[in-house]
Amino acid sequence: MYPPVDGVSRDDVFLMVFGPGTACAGVFTASRTASDDVDWCRRALVEGKGAARALLVNAGNSNAFTGAFGRAKNAASLEALQETLGVSQSHCFLAATGVIGEPLPSPGYIAASVQGMASSLTSPDWESLARAFMTTDTYPKGAGGTTNLAGTSVSMAGIAKGSGMIAPNMATMLAYAVTDAAIAPNLLQELLQEVTQKSFNSITVDGDTSTSDTFMVFATGASGMPPITSPEDPRYPPFKTLLLEIAQDLAVQIVKDGEGASKFITIEVAGAASDTEARAVGASVANSPLVKTALASSDANWGRVVMAVGNAGVAVDQARLRIWFGDHLVADAGGRAEGYDEGKASAACAKDEIVLRISLGDGPGQATVYTCDLTHAYIDINGAYRT
Amino acid sequence: MYPPVDGVSRDDVFLMVFGPGTACAGVFTASRTASDDVDWCRRALVEGKGAARALLVNAGNSNAFTGAFGRAKNAASLEALQETLGVSQSHCFLAATGVIGEPLPSPGYIAASVQGMASSLTSPDWESLARAFMTTDTYPKGAGGTTNLAGTSVSMAGIAKGSGMIAPNMATMLAYAVTDAAIAPNLLQELLQEVTQKSFNSITVDGDTSTSDTFMVFATGASGMPPITSPEDPRYPPFKTLLLEIAQDLAVQIVKDGEGASKFITIEVAGAASDTEARAVGASVANSPLVKTALASSDANWGRVVMAVGNAGVAVDQARLRIWFGDHLVADAGGRAEGYDEGKASAACAKDEIVLRISLGDGPGQATVYTCDLTHAYIDINGAYRT
Repeated sequence: MYPPVDGVSRDDVFLMVFGPGTACAGVFTASRTASDDVDWCRRALVEGKGAARALLVNAGNSNAFTGAFGRAKNAASLEALQETLGVSQSHCFLAATGVIGEPLPSPGYIAASVQGMASSLTSPDWESLARAFMTTDTYPKGAGGTTNLAGTSVSMAGIAKGSGMIAPNMATMLAYAVTDAAIAPNLLQELLQEVTQKSFNSITVDGDTSTSDTFMVFATGASGMPPITSPEDPRYPPFKTLLLEIAQDLAVQIVKDGEGASKFITIEVAGAASDTEARAVGASVANSPLVKTALASSDANWGRVVMAVGNAGVAVDQARLRIWFGDHLVADAGGRAEGYDEGKASAACAKDEIVLRISLGDGPGQATVYTCDLTHAYIDINGAYRT
Repeated sequence: MYPPVDGVSRDDVFLMVFGPGTACAGVFTASRTASDDVDWCRRALVEGKGAARALLVNAGNSNAFTGAFGRAKNAASLEALQETLGVSQSHCFLAATGVIGEPLPSPGYIAASVQGMASSLTSPDWESLARAFMTTDTYPKGAGGTTNLAGTSVSMAGIAKGSGMIAPNMATMLAYAVTDAAIAPNLLQELLQEVTQKSFNSITVDGDTSTSDTFMVFATGASGMPPITSPEDPRYPPFKTLLLEIAQDLAVQIVKDGEGASKFITIEVAGAASDTEARAVGASVANSPLVKTALASSDANWGRVVMAVGNAGVAVDQARLRIWFGDHLVADAGGRAEGYDEGKASAACAKDEIVLRISLGDGPGQATVYTCDLTHAYIDINGAYRT
């Protein structure tokens, strides 16, 4: 069910190579201190008109805020890819993850391994690729699926890394999907942006947005199908479903591996004026350290959810606000719900997977946001990260 | 140096009574799920035209999201104040702090103690008042000072409570200042808003804004001076300085008592396009759990400061961004500073009081934001708060 890819992985670096005609699309961090790799990918997408031939990713060092050194590192890597693979630089995409601001031993450090990797290209298993860019991740993250597009069976695989500094805004930590389907780059870009809103832009671990967030998808067309070029194409909806399922699967895996996480929390918001407002409310609850510490210790402190709803920058009619912990209604009609039962509320919070449901009224807006709890382990991991 | 006040404190409740002619002003939480007490104070300030006769504050229960019960509790308290003290309800101010959504034993619970307290009015020491509304606070917070206003010596005292759910937006947790100076209510309100920006609106413990944030100031005029009615009055600047000093003193005390805090962190931002942008950058750094956990363990992880600067929603020219840990320049010209010394950077982070300085360029905007580190104790305190 995973499409084959030409690739190779080393400790802390992987390379994928795509055939001619591969379309790609990407979304990147909204950080104003984005990494040089992110800057390059944005530029290459435009200059290369959405065609892709190579993806080179390293872990250990994020290449963010590394100044002239960082640009020199990317120039060296791109030159090595061009010479070794005979492809245009604007069809090569880069990413780096790890400590911010810390330069690699030399600008040519990654470039030096390109030739060796290019001569060792195989069809590696996706798990080895996913392992190559782990940092504080405790497990590799991958997802895959197949669908039928008007008679052509296509498959898609995706990998992601991320555990802390997770509050994606435009995209997430590093995530890549590859499919053998064929689709026009412009249409793929539109689709990617829509899918990202409901996947990577709907998760948070700690509210910190990374300098390197990247989600890219590569459509090689190896299935032989003619490209999808319009949203009206009957093959577009099933392709969209496949991409959305894989993106959501990867996004959920990141939250479950959130630094120090002991519980997976789903926040379903409905009845908002718009999806945007619903997502703002969900994110405010998901980012509240007071909500997250309460849930870590299975305390059904629903008043903190009220507090966080009130801080989302969205108008709230307290009389219509309703909150459920699991299936148990805890807040209603401007106060504690009539049938409130501490035992039932606590039981919902004692689970490893907690669902909070929030209704703001009868508007059409809805969103689901995923997060994890805040535990002692988060502090241990992040006090010692550089050492 | 502390002005006398007619007041009385009990366990978890205090009452202050002011003479006729007392002017007051207040700023309150920007939460969209503000407490009934906050709603009442906003209304009373308008209906009572900025005159104050009584302040009744209880701890243990916040009276936020308590619906009809909360409104009944306030009605009972206001009626008791009116009957016992013979004052207009619109000159009475209320606040409550504690668990959100949890009703008191009965709506008349606080009202029942009003008559007894009113018959026991003395000139209590300010510390006993400050102790009466503590929740997770580990010490009472007070500040006082005097100034000379054109020959009249006036004094001011302030008290505050707050330790968690601290990211004031418009105001802070509960804080009150009383002065025997005289000043017109409208002018006092303007002044209070200005002072709040540089004090309570410049601190954060955990990024969570409370439903009950309140900062009020009461000017009794007991010094006998004619009221200040214009900012052109030569007595206005020294009065403003006094209020600002007390507000900043209280705000800093709240941060130092931040739940689980082991370090006090000052973030000075300069060179921004505006003070508002500078404050946004300072707040983004101050609210980053990754910055706060690194500093808790004395790790000079300045790359996380770059990350947080990039997430403030403010344009950043990376080439001009400079960051100092204490006096040591760590980031400059788009990368790690030339003279970067890990030992010096770590030494700055090993102190109990850490100063981070951030320069964004040569704009006129500046701000100072105060926060604390994020430690295991925060998680312990907030996992067990309701129990």
